[in-house]
Amino acid sequence: MRLVNGASSDSLNLSDRAIQFGDGVFRTMKVTAGQIEFWSQHYAKLASDCARLGIVAPSEAILLAEIAQLAPVDHSIKIIVTRGESARGYMMPADIVPNRIVQRAALPLYASNLYTEGAVLRVCETQASWQPALAGVKHLNRLENVLARREWSDPAIFDGLMLDRDGFVIEGVMSNVFALINGVWSTPKLDCSGVAGVYRDMLLNMNACDDIHAIECDLKLVDLFAADAIFVCNSLAGCVPVRAIEQHRFPLKPRLINQLQQALRQVR
Amino acid sequence: MRLVNGASSDSLNLSDRAIQFGDGVFRTMKVTAGQIEFWSQHYAKLASDCARLGIVAPSEAILLAEIAQLAPVDHSIKIIVTRGESARGYMMPADIVPNRIVQRAALPLYASNLYTEGAVLRVCETQASWQPALAGVKHLNRLENVLARREWSDPAIFDGLMLDRDGFVIEGVMSNVFALINGVWSTPKLDCSGVAGVYRDMLLNMNACDDIHAIECDLKLVDLFAADAIFVCNSLAGCVPVRAIEQHRFPLKPRLINQLQQALRQVR
Repeated sequence: MRLVNGASSDSLNLSDRAIQFGDGVFRTMKVTAGQIEFWSQHYAKLASDCARLGIVAPSEAILLAEIAQLAPVDHSIKIIVTRGESARGYMMPADIVPNRIVQRAALPLYASNLYTEGAVLRVCETQASWQPALAGVKHLNRLENVLARREWSDPAIFDGLMLDRDGFVIEGVMSNVFALINGVWSTPKLDCSGVAGVYRDMLLNMNACDDIHAIECDLKLVDLFAADAIFVCNSLAGCVPVRAIEQHRFPLKPRLINQLQQALRQVR
Repeated sequence: MRLVNGASSDSLNLSDRAIQFGDGVFRTMKVTAGQIEFWSQHYAKLASDCARLGIVAPSEAILLAEIAQLAPVDHSIKIIVTRGESARGYMMPADIVPNRIVQRAALPLYASNLYTEGAVLRVCETQASWQPALAGVKHLNRLENVLARREWSDPAIFDGLMLDRDGFVIEGVMSNVFALINGVWSTPKLDCSGVAGVYRDMLLNMNACDDIHAIECDLKLVDLFAADAIFVCNSLAGCVPVRAIEQHRFPLKPRLINQLQQALRQVR
Protein backbone atom coordinates (compact mmCIF):
# COMPACT_ATOMS: atom_id res chain seq x y z
CA MET A 1 0.00 0.00 0.00
CA ARG A 2 1.30 3.39 -0.95
CA LEU A 3 0.32 7.00 -0.38
CA VAL A 4 1.12 9.90 -2.69
CA ASN A 5 0.50 13.21 -0.88
CA GLY A 6 -1.71 11.29 1.52
CA ALA A 7 -3.95 9.61 -1.06
CA SER A 8 -3.76 5.94 -1.93
CA SER A 9 -2.01 5.72 -5.31
CA ASP A 10 0.29 3.42 -7.25
CA SER A 11 1.70 5.98 -9.62
CA LEU A 12 3.46 9.32 -9.98
CA ASN A 13 2.84 12.02 -12.58
CA LEU A 14 5.31 11.84 -15.47
CA SER A 15 6.17 15.52 -14.96
CA ASP A 16 7.60 14.73 -11.54
CA ARG A 17 11.27 15.61 -11.42
CA ALA A 18 12.08 12.35 -9.60
CA ILE A 19 11.39 10.61 -12.93
CA GLN A 20 13.09 13.24 -15.06
CA PHE A 21 16.21 13.89 -12.97
CA GLY A 22 16.15 11.86 -9.75
CA ASP A 23 15.38 15.21 -8.12
CA GLY A 24 14.48 14.21 -4.58
CA VAL A 25 15.51 12.39 -1.41
CA PHE A 26 14.41 9.25 0.40
CA ARG A 27 14.59 7.38 3.68
CA THR A 28 14.07 3.76 4.62
CA MET A 29 13.16 2.83 8.18
CA LYS A 30 12.05 -0.09 10.29
CA VAL A 31 8.69 -0.28 12.04
CA THR A 32 8.23 -2.93 14.72
CA ALA A 33 4.98 -3.28 16.65
CA GLY A 34 3.92 0.05 15.12
CA GLN A 35 6.99 1.84 16.53
CA ILE A 36 9.32 3.56 14.05
CA GLU A 37 12.91 2.92 15.01
CA PHE A 38 14.89 6.15 15.42
CA TRP A 39 12.15 8.33 13.97
CA SER A 40 13.54 11.62 15.28
CA GLN A 41 16.92 10.85 13.67
CA HIS A 42 15.26 9.85 10.39
CA TYR A 43 13.11 12.95 10.31
CA ALA A 44 16.05 15.23 11.15
CA LYS A 45 18.09 13.63 8.34
CA LEU A 46 15.18 13.90 5.88
CA ALA A 47 14.81 17.59 6.69
CA SER A 48 18.55 18.14 6.42
CA ASP A 49 18.76 16.30 3.07
CA CYS A 50 15.80 18.31 1.73
CA ALA A 51 17.53 21.52 2.82
CA ARG A 52 20.74 20.48 1.03
CA LEU A 53 18.77 20.26 -2.23
CA GLY A 54 16.50 23.25 -1.56
CA ILE A 55 13.32 21.18 -1.20
CA VAL A 56 10.70 22.01 1.44
CA ALA A 57 10.39 18.96 3.71
CA PRO A 58 6.93 17.66 4.63
CA SER A 59 5.89 18.19 8.23
CA GLU A 60 6.70 15.57 10.83
CA ALA A 61 3.02 15.29 11.88
CA ILE A 62 1.85 14.50 8.34
CA LEU A 63 4.52 11.85 7.83
CA LEU A 64 3.84 10.24 11.22
CA ALA A 65 0.12 10.03 10.47
CA GLU A 66 0.77 8.45 7.06
CA ILE A 67 3.25 5.92 8.44
CA ALA A 68 0.81 4.96 11.22
CA GLN A 69 -1.86 4.39 8.56
CA LEU A 70 0.44 2.17 6.46
CA ALA A 71 2.41 0.31 9.09
CA PRO A 72 0.37 -0.51 12.21
CA VAL A 73 2.61 -3.53 12.98
CA ASP A 74 5.93 -4.68 11.42
CA HIS A 75 7.05 -3.20 8.11
CA SER A 76 9.78 -1.31 6.37
CA ILE A 77 8.70 2.18 5.37
CA LYS A 78 10.21 4.16 2.53
CA ILE A 79 9.58 7.89 2.28
CA ILE A 80 10.40 9.70 -0.96
CA VAL A 81 10.19 13.48 -1.19
CA THR A 82 10.51 14.81 -4.72
CA ARG A 83 11.00 18.43 -5.73
CA GLY A 84 7.66 18.27 -7.56
CA GLU A 85 6.43 18.61 -11.13
CA SER A 86 7.74 20.88 -13.86
CA ALA A 87 7.90 21.21 -17.64
CA ARG A 88 10.86 20.01 -19.72
CA GLY A 89 14.27 21.33 -18.69
CA TYR A 90 16.40 21.66 -15.58
CA MET A 91 14.92 25.02 -14.58
CA MET A 92 12.07 24.89 -12.06
CA PRO A 93 9.28 27.32 -11.22
CA ALA A 94 9.81 29.26 -7.99
CA ASP A 95 6.50 27.97 -6.61
CA ILE A 96 7.12 24.27 -7.27
CA VAL A 97 5.36 22.02 -4.73
CA PRO A 98 7.09 18.84 -3.50
CA ASN A 99 5.43 15.44 -3.88
CA ARG A 100 5.59 13.00 -0.99
CA ILE A 101 5.42 9.23 -1.32
CA VAL A 102 5.12 6.90 1.66
CA GLN A 103 5.21 3.19 0.90
CA ARG A 104 5.54 0.06 2.94
CA ALA A 105 7.16 -3.28 2.28
CA ALA A 106 7.71 -6.46 4.27
CA LEU A 107 10.79 -6.34 6.49
CA PRO A 108 13.68 -8.12 4.78
CA LEU A 109 14.38 -11.62 6.08
CA TYR A 110 17.99 -11.98 7.12
CA ALA A 111 19.51 -15.41 7.66
CA SER A 112 19.26 -16.30 11.37
CA ASN A 113 23.04 -16.77 11.59
CA LEU A 114 23.89 -13.38 10.03
CA TYR A 115 24.45 -11.76 13.43
CA THR A 116 26.12 -14.74 15.11
CA GLU A 117 28.38 -15.88 12.26
CA GLY A 118 28.86 -12.54 10.52
CA ALA A 119 28.46 -11.26 6.99
CA VAL A 120 30.69 -11.68 3.95
CA LEU A 121 31.45 -8.57 1.88
CA ARG A 122 32.98 -8.16 -1.54
CA VAL A 123 34.86 -5.23 -3.06
CA CYS A 124 32.99 -3.64 -5.97
CA GLU A 125 34.55 -2.54 -9.22
CA THR A 126 32.00 0.28 -9.51
CA GLN A 127 33.51 3.25 -7.71
CA ALA A 128 31.81 5.88 -5.60
CA SER A 129 31.53 9.21 -7.40
CA TRP A 130 33.19 12.40 -6.20
CA GLN A 131 30.52 15.07 -5.73
CA PRO A 132 30.74 17.27 -2.63
CA ALA A 133 27.44 19.01 -3.47
CA LEU A 134 25.58 15.72 -2.93
CA ALA A 135 27.90 13.77 -0.58
CA GLY A 136 26.17 12.45 2.52
CA VAL A 137 22.67 13.11 1.16
CA LYS A 138 20.32 10.14 0.63
CA HIS A 139 19.12 11.47 -2.73
CA LEU A 140 17.44 9.68 -5.62
CA ASN A 141 20.53 9.63 -7.90
CA ARG A 142 21.54 6.08 -7.00
CA LEU A 143 22.72 4.64 -10.30
CA GLU A 144 26.18 3.90 -8.95
CA ASN A 145 24.66 1.77 -6.19
CA VAL A 146 22.51 0.00 -8.80
CA LEU A 147 25.56 -0.75 -10.98
CA ALA A 148 27.58 -1.90 -7.97
CA ARG A 149 24.74 -4.19 -6.80
CA ARG A 150 24.59 -5.76 -10.28
CA GLU A 151 28.14 -7.04 -9.84
CA TRP A 152 27.11 -10.07 -7.76
CA SER A 153 24.17 -12.41 -7.40
CA ASP A 154 25.55 -14.81 -4.78
CA PRO A 155 23.10 -14.51 -1.82
CA ALA A 156 25.94 -15.44 0.55
CA ILE A 157 27.45 -12.01 -0.05
CA PHE A 158 25.70 -9.48 2.16
CA ASP A 159 27.05 -6.27 0.67
CA GLY A 160 29.80 -4.81 -1.52
CA LEU A 161 32.29 -2.13 -0.55
CA MET A 162 32.66 0.89 -2.83
CA LEU A 163 35.91 2.84 -3.08
CA ASP A 164 36.47 6.32 -4.45
CA ARG A 165 38.84 7.44 -7.18
CA ASP A 166 41.76 7.63 -4.75
CA GLY A 167 41.19 4.14 -3.36
CA PHE A 168 39.56 5.30 -0.13
CA VAL A 169 36.76 3.09 1.16
CA ILE A 170 33.46 5.02 1.15
CA GLU A 171 30.62 2.66 2.08
CA GLY A 172 28.75 -0.51 1.33
CA VAL A 173 26.23 -0.44 -1.51
CA MET A 174 23.45 -0.42 1.11
CA SER A 175 25.32 0.23 4.36
CA ASN A 176 27.92 2.27 6.17
CA VAL A 177 31.06 0.52 7.37
CA PHE A 178 33.02 0.73 10.66
CA ALA A 179 36.44 -0.81 11.37
CA LEU A 180 37.92 -1.31 14.84
CA ILE A 181 41.45 0.14 14.64
CA ASN A 182 43.48 0.65 17.82
CA GLY A 183 40.34 0.40 19.93
CA VAL A 184 38.48 3.07 17.93
CA TRP A 185 35.56 2.41 15.56
CA SER A 186 36.65 4.21 12.40
CA THR A 187 34.30 5.02 9.52
CA PRO A 188 35.03 6.74 6.19
CA LYS A 189 34.63 10.49 5.86
CA LEU A 190 31.71 11.25 3.56
CA ASP A 191 32.39 14.85 2.60
CA CYS A 192 32.89 14.13 -1.11
CA SER A 193 31.09 10.79 -1.69
CA GLY A 194 28.60 8.38 -0.19
CA VAL A 195 25.46 8.39 1.94
CA ALA A 196 25.60 9.15 5.67
CA GLY A 197 23.01 6.88 7.31
CA VAL A 198 21.37 7.52 10.66
CA TYR A 199 23.10 4.54 12.32
CA ARG A 200 26.45 6.03 11.32
CA ASP A 201 25.45 9.43 12.68
CA MET A 202 24.21 7.97 15.96
CA LEU A 203 27.39 5.94 16.46
CA LEU A 204 29.58 8.97 15.76
CA ASN A 205 27.58 11.00 18.29
CA MET A 206 27.68 8.59 21.23
CA ASN A 207 31.38 8.79 22.05
CA ALA A 208 31.25 10.60 25.34
CA CYS A 209 28.50 8.77 27.18
CA ASP A 210 28.93 5.12 26.28
CA ASP A 211 32.64 4.37 26.26
CA ILE A 212 32.29 3.90 22.50
CA HIS A 213 34.87 5.73 20.49
CA ALA A 214 33.91 6.29 16.87
CA ILE A 215 35.59 8.68 14.44
CA GLU A 216 35.54 9.62 10.77
CA CYS A 217 38.81 9.20 8.93
CA ASP A 218 40.39 8.24 5.61
CA LEU A 219 40.43 4.47 5.26
CA LYS A 220 41.95 2.34 2.52
CA LEU A 221 41.28 -1.36 2.00
CA VAL A 222 44.62 -2.21 3.65
CA ASP A 223 43.42 -0.41 6.78
CA LEU A 224 40.23 -2.49 6.79
CA PHE A 225 42.17 -5.71 6.20
CA ALA A 226 44.35 -4.92 9.24
CA ALA A 227 41.38 -4.01 11.47
CA ASP A 228 40.53 -5.95 14.65
CA ALA A 229 36.84 -6.13 13.68
CA ILE A 230 34.46 -4.77 11.06
CA PHE A 231 30.73 -4.16 11.00
CA VAL A 232 28.30 -2.63 8.52
CA CYS A 233 25.04 -0.94 9.44
CA ASN A 234 21.81 0.32 7.96
CA SER A 235 18.34 1.07 9.26
CA LEU A 236 16.80 -2.30 8.37
CA ALA A 237 19.64 -4.66 9.33
CA GLY A 238 21.09 -2.70 12.27
CA CYS A 239 24.76 -3.45 13.08
CA VAL A 240 25.93 -6.56 11.23
CA PRO A 241 29.34 -8.01 12.16
CA VAL A 242 31.56 -8.83 9.18
CA ARG A 243 33.47 -12.10 9.17
CA ALA A 244 35.18 -11.67 5.80
CA ILE A 245 35.91 -9.16 3.06
CA GLU A 246 36.64 -11.50 0.18
CA GLN A 247 39.49 -13.73 1.46
CA HIS A 248 40.37 -11.53 4.44
CA ARG A 249 38.81 -12.81 7.68
CA PHE A 250 37.98 -10.91 10.85
CA PRO A 251 37.17 -11.90 14.43
CA LEU A 252 33.54 -11.18 15.34
CA LYS A 253 33.85 -9.49 18.76
CA PRO A 254 30.23 -10.15 19.79
CA ARG A 255 30.76 -8.33 23.10
CA LEU A 256 31.67 -5.09 21.29
CA ILE A 257 28.81 -5.32 18.80
CA ASN A 258 26.48 -5.98 21.72
CA GLN A 259 27.79 -2.87 23.45
CA LEU A 260 26.93 -0.84 20.32
CA GLN A 261 23.45 -2.33 20.06
CA GLN A 262 22.76 -1.62 23.72
CA ALA A 263 23.98 1.95 23.42
CA LEU A 264 21.79 2.43 20.34
CA ARG A 265 18.75 1.12 22.21
CA GLN A 266 19.21 3.97 24.65
CA VAL A 267 19.27 6.61 21.90
CA ARG A 268 15.65 6.46 20.88
CA MET B 1 0.58 14.06 -24.86
CA ARG B 2 2.62 11.20 -23.53
CA LEU B 3 2.93 7.49 -24.17
CA VAL B 4 4.06 4.89 -21.63
CA ASN B 5 4.89 1.64 -23.42
CA GLY B 6 2.77 2.86 -26.32
CA ALA B 7 -0.38 3.68 -24.35
CA SER B 8 -1.51 7.20 -23.58
CA SER B 9 -0.69 7.83 -19.91
CA ASP B 10 0.32 10.65 -17.60
CA SER B 11 1.89 8.55 -14.89
CA LEU B 12 4.45 5.91 -14.04
CA ASN B 13 4.14 3.07 -11.55
CA LEU B 14 5.75 3.89 -8.19
CA SER B 15 7.77 0.67 -8.39
CA ASP B 16 9.61 1.98 -11.43
CA ARG B 17 13.31 2.27 -10.70
CA ALA B 18 13.46 5.68 -12.43
CA ILE B 19 11.56 7.01 -9.39
CA GLN B 20 13.47 4.95 -6.85
CA PHE B 21 17.02 5.36 -8.18
CA GLY B 22 17.04 7.39 -11.42
CA ASP B 23 17.70 4.00 -13.04
CA GLY B 24 17.35 4.80 -16.74
CA VAL B 25 18.43 6.96 -19.67
CA PHE B 26 16.85 9.68 -21.78
CA ARG B 27 17.15 11.62 -25.00
CA THR B 28 15.77 14.94 -26.16
CA MET B 29 15.41 15.67 -29.86
CA LYS B 30 13.96 18.18 -32.26
CA VAL B 31 11.17 17.38 -34.70
CA THR B 32 10.52 19.88 -37.52
CA ALA B 33 7.82 19.28 -40.10
CA GLY B 34 7.52 15.75 -38.74
CA GLN B 35 11.22 15.00 -39.38
CA ILE B 36 13.37 14.00 -36.40
CA GLU B 37 16.72 15.73 -36.58
CA PHE B 38 19.63 13.28 -36.44
CA TRP B 39 17.44 10.32 -35.53
CA SER B 40 20.01 7.68 -36.39
CA GLN B 41 22.56 9.38 -34.12
CA HIS B 42 20.00 9.71 -31.32
CA TYR B 43 18.95 6.09 -31.59
CA ALA B 44 22.55 4.86 -31.68
CA LYS B 45 23.34 6.91 -28.57
CA LEU B 46 20.19 5.68 -26.79
CA ALA B 47 21.15 2.08 -27.55
CA SER B 48 24.72 2.69 -26.43
CA ASP B 49 23.62 4.39 -23.19
CA CYS B 50 21.20 1.52 -22.45
CA ALA B 51 24.02 -0.96 -23.04
CA ARG B 52 26.30 0.96 -20.62
CA LEU B 53 23.68 0.43 -17.87
CA GLY B 54 22.63 -3.08 -18.93
CA ILE B 55 19.13 -2.06 -20.04
CA VAL B 56 17.54 -3.57 -23.16
CA ALA B 57 16.82 -0.67 -25.54
CA PRO B 58 13.42 -0.47 -27.25
CA SER B 59 13.39 -1.18 -30.97
CA GLU B 60 13.91 1.66 -33.41
CA ALA B 61 10.67 0.84 -35.24
CA ILE B 62 8.55 1.11 -32.08
CA LEU B 63 10.09 4.44 -31.09
CA LEU B 64 9.71 5.88 -34.60
CA ALA B 65 6.03 4.92 -34.68
CA GLU B 66 5.41 6.50 -31.28
CA ILE B 67 7.24 9.71 -32.17
CA ALA B 68 5.29 9.97 -35.43
CA GLN B 69 2.06 9.61 -33.45
CA LEU B 70 3.04 12.35 -30.98
CA ALA B 71 4.88 14.80 -33.17
CA PRO B 72 3.43 15.07 -36.69
CA VAL B 73 4.74 18.66 -37.06
CA ASP B 74 7.14 20.72 -34.86
CA HIS B 75 7.91 19.54 -31.33
CA SER B 76 10.63 18.52 -28.98
CA ILE B 77 10.48 14.84 -28.12
CA LYS B 78 11.86 13.31 -24.96
CA ILE B 79 12.36 9.57 -24.71
CA ILE B 80 12.97 7.97 -21.31
CA VAL B 81 13.89 4.31 -21.01
CA THR B 82 13.83 3.01 -17.44
CA ARG B 83 15.15 -0.31 -16.22
CA GLY B 84 11.62 -1.25 -15.18
CA GLU B 85 9.81 -2.07 -11.97
CA SER B 86 11.12 -3.92 -8.93
CA ALA B 87 10.53 -4.32 -5.20
CA ARG B 88 12.46 -2.34 -2.55
CA GLY B 89 16.24 -2.51 -2.76
CA TYR B 90 19.00 -2.08 -5.32
CA MET B 91 18.86 -5.70 -6.50
CA MET B 92 16.74 -6.35 -9.57
CA PRO B 93 15.08 -9.48 -10.94
CA ALA B 94 16.87 -11.05 -13.91
CA ASP B 95 13.72 -10.80 -16.01
CA ILE B 96 13.01 -7.12 -15.37
CA VAL B 97 11.24 -5.43 -18.30
CA PRO B 98 12.14 -1.81 -19.23
CA ASN B 99 9.49 0.90 -19.34
CA ARG B 100 9.52 3.37 -22.22
CA ILE B 101 8.14 6.89 -22.05
CA VAL B 102 7.78 9.12 -25.10
CA GLN B 103 6.58 12.65 -24.48
CA ARG B 104 6.36 15.80 -26.50
CA ALA B 105 6.69 19.46 -25.62
CA ALA B 106 6.69 22.73 -27.55
CA LEU B 107 10.05 23.62 -29.05
CA PRO B 108 11.82 26.14 -26.80
CA LEU B 109 11.67 29.73 -28.04
CA TYR B 110 15.14 31.21 -28.26
CA ALA B 111 15.63 34.96 -28.60
CA SER B 112 15.94 35.86 -32.27
CA ASN B 113 19.34 37.46 -31.70
CA LEU B 114 20.83 34.44 -29.88
CA TYR B 115 22.57 33.18 -33.01
CA THR B 116 23.58 36.59 -34.40
CA GLU B 117 24.71 38.26 -31.17
CA GLY B 118 25.80 35.19 -29.25
CA ALA B 119 25.05 33.71 -25.84
CA VAL B 120 26.31 34.68 -22.41
CA LEU B 121 27.52 31.89 -20.11
CA ARG B 122 28.33 31.86 -16.43
CA VAL B 123 30.63 29.59 -14.43
CA CYS B 124 28.75 27.41 -11.96
CA GLU B 125 29.82 26.73 -8.40
CA THR B 126 28.26 23.24 -8.57
CA GLN B 127 30.96 20.96 -9.89
CA ALA B 128 30.65 17.99 -12.24
CA SER B 129 31.01 14.69 -10.42
CA TRP B 130 33.79 12.20 -11.12
CA GLN B 131 32.22 8.85 -12.07
CA PRO B 132 33.77 6.94 -14.98
CA ALA B 133 31.07 4.24 -14.83
CA LEU B 134 28.47 6.83 -15.87
CA ALA B 135 30.51 9.46 -17.72
CA GLY B 136 29.19 10.30 -21.16
CA VAL B 137 25.85 8.56 -20.58
CA LYS B 138 22.65 10.64 -20.69
CA HIS B 139 21.22 8.91 -17.62
CA LEU B 140 18.48 10.00 -15.23
CA ASN B 141 20.83 10.92 -12.34
CA ARG B 142 20.88 14.61 -13.12
CA LEU B 143 20.81 16.23 -9.69
CA GLU B 144 24.09 18.05 -10.26
CA ASN B 145 22.63 19.71 -13.37
CA VAL B 146 19.54 20.64 -11.35
CA LEU B 147 21.65 22.21 -8.59
CA ALA B 148 23.83 24.04 -11.12
CA ARG B 149 20.77 25.39 -12.96
CA ARG B 150 19.38 26.72 -9.65
CA GLU B 151 22.37 29.03 -9.34
CA TRP B 152 20.94 31.66 -11.69
CA SER B 153 17.57 33.01 -12.76
CA ASP B 154 18.69 35.81 -15.12
CA PRO B 155 17.15 34.88 -18.51
CA ALA B 156 20.02 36.72 -20.25
CA ILE B 157 22.34 33.87 -19.20
CA PHE B 158 21.97 31.02 -21.67
CA ASP B 159 23.87 28.30 -19.80
CA GLY B 160 26.40 27.69 -17.03
CA LEU B 161 29.75 25.93 -17.33
CA MET B 162 30.51 23.10 -14.93
CA LEU B 163 34.07 22.23 -13.91
CA ASP B 164 35.35 19.05 -12.33
CA ARG B 165 37.29 18.60 -9.11
CA ASP B 166 40.58 19.41 -10.84
CA GLY B 167 39.27 22.60 -12.44
CA PHE B 168 38.85 21.11 -15.91
CA VAL B 169 35.85 22.41 -17.84
CA ILE B 170 33.39 19.57 -18.49
CA GLU B 171 30.23 20.95 -20.10
CA GLY B 172 27.36 23.39 -19.90
CA VAL B 173 24.43 22.45 -17.66
CA MET B 174 22.42 21.67 -20.82
CA SER B 175 25.07 21.75 -23.56
CA ASN B 176 28.51 20.66 -24.70
CA VAL B 177 31.15 23.32 -25.24
CA PHE B 178 33.74 23.83 -28.00
CA ALA B 179 36.60 26.36 -28.01
CA LEU B 180 38.59 27.40 -31.09
CA ILE B 181 42.23 27.10 -30.08
CA ASN B 182 44.98 27.33 -32.71
CA GLY B 183 42.46 26.68 -35.47
CA VAL B 184 41.10 23.51 -33.82
CA TRP B 185 37.67 23.17 -32.19
CA SER B 186 38.55 21.68 -28.79
CA THR B 187 35.98 20.10 -26.47
CA PRO B 188 36.46 18.58 -23.01
CA LYS B 189 37.16 14.87 -22.63
CA LEU B 190 34.18 13.18 -21.00
CA ASP B 191 35.72 9.92 -19.80
CA CYS B 192 35.14 10.65 -16.10
CA SER B 193 32.33 13.25 -16.05
CA GLY B 194 29.60 14.82 -18.13
CA VAL B 195 27.17 13.93 -20.90
CA ALA B 196 28.33 13.38 -24.48
CA GLY B 197 25.60 14.80 -26.72
CA VAL B 198 25.01 13.80 -30.33
CA TYR B 199 26.07 17.23 -31.67
CA ARG B 200 29.41 16.80 -29.91
CA ASP B 201 29.82 13.30 -31.32
CA MET B 202 28.95 14.42 -34.86
CA LEU B 203 31.38 17.34 -34.71
CA LEU B 204 34.17 15.10 -33.45
CA ASN B 205 33.48 12.65 -36.28
CA MET B 206 33.50 15.05 -39.19
CA ASN B 207 37.15 16.02 -39.15
CA ALA B 208 38.27 14.36 -42.34
CA CYS B 209 35.59 15.35 -44.80
CA ASP B 210 34.72 18.92 -43.98
CA ASP B 211 37.92 20.77 -43.19
CA ILE B 212 36.62 20.98 -39.61
CA HIS B 213 39.14 19.96 -37.02
CA ALA B 214 37.62 19.02 -33.67
CA ILE B 215 39.36 17.19 -30.85
CA GLU B 216 38.82 16.14 -27.25
CA CYS B 217 41.31 17.49 -24.75
CA ASP B 218 41.75 18.76 -21.20
CA LEU B 219 40.57 22.37 -21.00
CA LYS B 220 40.71 24.74 -18.06
CA LEU B 221 38.87 28.04 -17.83
CA VAL B 222 42.06 29.92 -18.74
CA ASP B 223 42.17 27.95 -21.99
CA LEU B 224 38.59 28.96 -22.77
CA PHE B 225 39.29 32.59 -21.88
CA ALA B 226 42.20 32.61 -24.35
CA ALA B 227 40.21 30.90 -27.14
CA ASP B 228 39.54 32.61 -30.50
CA ALA B 229 35.85 31.61 -30.37
CA ILE B 230 33.47 29.51 -28.27
CA PHE B 231 30.18 27.79 -29.01
CA VAL B 232 27.87 25.52 -27.06
CA CYS B 233 25.56 22.94 -28.63
CA ASN B 234 22.63 20.71 -27.84
CA SER B 235 19.92 18.99 -29.85
CA LEU B 236 17.28 21.68 -29.43
CA ALA B 237 19.40 24.83 -29.83
CA GLY B 238 21.98 23.50 -32.30
CA CYS B 239 25.32 25.36 -32.32
CA VAL B 240 25.06 28.62 -30.36
CA PRO B 241 27.97 31.07 -30.58
CA VAL B 242 29.14 32.43 -27.22
CA ARG B 243 29.91 36.12 -26.90
CA ALA B 244 30.88 36.11 -23.23
CA ILE B 245 31.74 33.86 -20.31
CA GLU B 246 31.06 36.22 -17.42
CA GLN B 247 33.31 39.24 -18.12
CA HIS B 248 35.44 37.50 -20.77
CA ARG B 249 34.31 38.37 -24.31
CA PHE B 250 34.82 36.42 -27.53
CA PRO B 251 34.54 37.23 -31.23
CA LEU B 252 31.60 35.48 -32.87
CA LYS B 253 33.17 34.07 -36.10
CA PRO B 254 29.83 33.63 -37.92
CA ARG B 255 31.63 32.15 -40.96
CA LEU B 256 33.06 29.30 -38.89
CA ILE B 257 29.78 28.57 -37.08
CA ASN B 258 28.04 28.58 -40.46
CA GLN B 259 30.59 26.08 -41.76
CA LEU B 260 29.74 23.78 -38.81
CA GLN B 261 25.99 24.12 -39.36
CA GLN B 262 26.37 23.34 -43.08
CA ALA B 263 28.53 20.32 -42.39
CA LEU B 264 25.97 19.10 -39.84
CA ARG B 265 23.17 19.46 -42.36
CA GLN B 266 24.98 16.97 -44.55
CA VAL B 267 25.25 14.41 -41.75
CA ARG B 268 21.65 13.44 -41.55
